[in-house]
Amino acid sequence: MKAIVNVYLKQGVLDPQGKAAHHALESLGFHGIEDVRIGKQIVIKLDSMSKEEAITKVKEMSETLLANTVIEDYDIEIVQ
Amino acid sequence: MKAIVNVYLKQGVLDPQGKAAHHALESLGFHGIEDVRIGKQIVIKLDSMSKEEAITKVKEMSETLLANTVIEDYDIEIVQ
Repeated sequence: MKAIVNVYLKQGVLDPQGKAAHHALESLGFHGIEDVRIGKQIVIKLDSMSKEEAITKVKEMSETLLANTVIEDYDIEIVQ
Repeated sequence: MKAIVNVYLKQGVLDPQGKAAHHALESLGFHGIEDVRIGKQIVIKLDSMSKEEAITKVKEMSETLLANTVIEDYDIEIVQ
């Protein structure tokens, strides 16, 4: 069983890494970009358990360690 | 139009950031984790264009700047 946690900055929080990538892309000749934002994708391989159990567990992991909920949001996807 | 690029280390490439998160989660009392790998999720807002055009453009961006294709793989998803 695999859980994918996408952690991204909340709307309104400045993203300097994204801004840098945006400028770099433009200076490389890519146009028509409105905005770039960079987050983390965390893939967690879990021992077999029910989907509900996995969601509860991974949510707790996200709140405790994976996301800084003051400035970041996250979503969880369970695959397999 | 929004493109999501997930950039992750190729299989076999050591992921020290993922290993650190794995150990931290275990020391916090989370068990039943087999593996943790951490990648990047890049969200690019694009001016309106066709889906095909967007895919071609974002693929070029990924190859040029967003992913280090020696050690990283990526996948592209177009939404909206």
